[in-house]
Amino acid sequence: MRHILIIGTGKSTSYLIQYLTEKAEKEQLHLILADKNLENARSLAAQNKHVSLQEIDIFDLEGRRKIIEKADIVISMLPARLHINIAEDCLELNKNLVTASYVSPEMAALDKQVKEKGLLFLNEMGVDPGIDHMSAMRVIDQVREKGGKMLLFESFTGGLVAPESDDNLWNYKFTWNPRNVVVAGQGGTAKFIQEGKYKYIPYHKLFRRTEFLEIEGYGRFEGYANRDSLKYREAYGLQDALTLYRGTMRRIGFSKAWNMFVQLGMTDDSFELEDSENMSYRDFINAFLPYHPTDSVELKLRHYLKIDQDDIMWEKLEELDLFNAEKKIEIPNATPAQALQKILEDKWTLKDHDKDMIVMYHKFGYKNGSERRQIDSSLVVIGEDRTYTAMAKTVGLPVAIAALKILNQEIDLSGVHIPIIKELYDPILDELEEHGIRFVEKEMPYLGYNPDFVAG
Amino acid sequence: MRHILIIGTGKSTSYLIQYLTEKAEKEQLHLILADKNLENARSLAAQNKHVSLQEIDIFDLEGRRKIIEKADIVISMLPARLHINIAEDCLELNKNLVTASYVSPEMAALDKQVKEKGLLFLNEMGVDPGIDHMSAMRVIDQVREKGGKMLLFESFTGGLVAPESDDNLWNYKFTWNPRNVVVAGQGGTAKFIQEGKYKYIPYHKLFRRTEFLEIEGYGRFEGYANRDSLKYREAYGLQDALTLYRGTMRRIGFSKAWNMFVQLGMTDDSFELEDSENMSYRDFINAFLPYHPTDSVELKLRHYLKIDQDDIMWEKLEELDLFNAEKKIEIPNATPAQALQKILEDKWTLKDHDKDMIVMYHKFGYKNGSERRQIDSSLVVIGEDRTYTAMAKTVGLPVAIAALKILNQEIDLSGVHIPIIKELYDPILDELEEHGIRFVEKEMPYLGYNPDFVAG
Repeated sequence: MRHILIIGTGKSTSYLIQYLTEKAEKEQLHLILADKNLENARSLAAQNKHVSLQEIDIFDLEGRRKIIEKADIVISMLPARLHINIAEDCLELNKNLVTASYVSPEMAALDKQVKEKGLLFLNEMGVDPGIDHMSAMRVIDQVREKGGKMLLFESFTGGLVAPESDDNLWNYKFTWNPRNVVVAGQGGTAKFIQEGKYKYIPYHKLFRRTEFLEIEGYGRFEGYANRDSLKYREAYGLQDALTLYRGTMRRIGFSKAWNMFVQLGMTDDSFELEDSENMSYRDFINAFLPYHPTDSVELKLRHYLKIDQDDIMWEKLEELDLFNAEKKIEIPNATPAQALQKILEDKWTLKDHDKDMIVMYHKFGYKNGSERRQIDSSLVVIGEDRTYTAMAKTVGLPVAIAALKILNQEIDLSGVHIPIIKELYDPILDELEEHGIRFVEKEMPYLGYNPDFVAG
Repeated sequence: MRHILIIGTGKSTSYLIQYLTEKAEKEQLHLILADKNLENARSLAAQNKHVSLQEIDIFDLEGRRKIIEKADIVISMLPARLHINIAEDCLELNKNLVTASYVSPEMAALDKQVKEKGLLFLNEMGVDPGIDHMSAMRVIDQVREKGGKMLLFESFTGGLVAPESDDNLWNYKFTWNPRNVVVAGQGGTAKFIQEGKYKYIPYHKLFRRTEFLEIEGYGRFEGYANRDSLKYREAYGLQDALTLYRGTMRRIGFSKAWNMFVQLGMTDDSFELEDSENMSYRDFINAFLPYHPTDSVELKLRHYLKIDQDDIMWEKLEELDLFNAEKKIEIPNATPAQALQKILEDKWTLKDHDKDMIVMYHKFGYKNGSERRQIDSSLVVIGEDRTYTAMAKTVGLPVAIAALKILNQEIDLSGVHIPIIKELYDPILDELEEHGIRFVEKEMPYLGYNPDFVAG
């Protein structure tokens, strides 16, 4: 019997747990689900004989290590900032570790010690980061194997609502941490390179500099730039590429409407509103509009943001009940971002049978001799319901597959890694395809970075 | 003979030194001018028999204290962050201290110790902060003495170019630290209260939410909100006032044009541009515009910021030579703000005989019984030339006057103070009037916070 310890059993663990319990009999696995709050773990797997539940206080070193000691491999699904605590335990107790989060500088710093002990700490094993790395590197390596040289790489990912559940004017619902959606794009100027020119977009322009994408069968999308487009230049070996652009996908029109909140200052997370607890939704908007003794909040807003009376943007605001003078924010000392999140959660929470959707789009431009070619590759995954989401599937399955392969010694690596090498991505992508996580590739003549697809 | 030590002898010390040297004979003063670089001190006062120069390394505790030990009073005109070092020395060596800077939390924390030693550390003794406090509190105290209750306080200050030297389209030249002008408004949402409603303006809207002001004989001005309008609510005793607004004054049209830089992201000081050293001015703009293989930088900019072909905004950009493909930024690892500062310094530096201008405008609204009244109070000071500026006069004279009065024991206070009490502001304002620093007051019916003066 091998023990797999999963620490953190939140929303994104449904498929992870399902995959491993289904393999438990055959693979001789026992799952330990550890969390401060076991409610979700209980509803996902309480009745399963291959699973035991374990309350854990992540800040109690001794208790934590007692639990980790029993495991043959550890999967941390905690909030990213907490992985480092688990990583230190794993190093101490000689356990392999898998996470779905970005490698923090603290995690990276463990590399040498992890190697010396012959352990593997495999990170960025979710969807983004995770499937994006694996699917991109598979194509990039194929291009290179055929003697090609990469010119362009653009990559977009979005967590959206599936077409069949897409029933609001924003074409959006929260499918992961709402807070991350509200503050998306903050914390620094977006930086990327297009046809050899570095470009910088400040936060207040980010949602007006979108690009358009189309996925066959699913219609049109837009993408806005991530902050860190140049982050993987070295890891992917794209130092000479002329265009590197990573972005987030939304349905067309979302960003233009979201920009209203950005312009008003309602996404700001850096200060607390006065008396936020007793503020109505209407007061909240008015706090960002000029004072006037008689003009209505509505007219001031229309004028300030130049919204015509027949503009769909207006209906998007009304749909959120933003002008309601009765509904209160109710959160003491709320930042604008926290207040806005509360208003959006009223409307954008998935209903029980709502389905979510993960979309990913890569463009690869390359040169082979004198010929320039392009490969577009896209992925769509639709969730089953509010528990078995596409988000949980694309985050959890790669983690689960990787963990089992490490346990079975099918992966022979040591150190702190992300899945950008063939030895990792090939078997994992192959198995993901069996679960319906399959990219569609199109070869075409090189279009280059195409400004005709850029919004005004 | 009494020794006055002035540490830091930069641009804003010309009148400070002039005032004290003129009094030296009669008042038995000797001035010690201490700086790392004595060039400015030498050109201001080298030939004066009442003055000696002293090189100082501000980070050498022992050397610093040897110099401070000899002084009967210390004036620190160093950059604000360095005052605390001098303050600690003064506490140790039992010296009174005067500065023109905001009281930092570290400075405030010394209050008890300073009081116990019977010393006075008088801060915020310049123009803004300084003359603004004194002139405001004089009117507020008068209103209260007559039984009035304050309803509204708005206060605006600007360091501008005098009408006779105002020869560029921006109606602006640098009259103090250019860096502070470029990053003005950054570092947090502006917060104020108008007719009982809290209002918040994010940085990217700050320069589009200006208000208009007029000063008789000097025409119209605009004001944009400071970050800290509520900061002096308690110090001024204005907890119940319905409107509190502090702002910065510019000539009409400056803020709308400056907003172009804000929108582009060119005032950002949080990251370094790639290869800034070799970037042309034209490259610099282009880095903030979308990529296009053939469209010109000019057209992209016009389109992005929606600038019509006959808009004066365009000529303002051209006047700065912003589209020049030959002129280079030349600064390695420059932030956008540093690059922009360099471009602006080419054009906005005062010429030898250029005169600057300080403008200040206060509005006081109050209620006396059932009657509502308003007092508007304004100040204009014109400089003499690039050395004897209005900025140096309004910063340096209050410091000089206060220092001499403390030395002559005409001020009997101890602790860390700012000039908001009658005992301080009355004699100092009276003497400033002798030097032409004189407010013009107008009484009128109460207009309240008047949104008709707010720009669209």
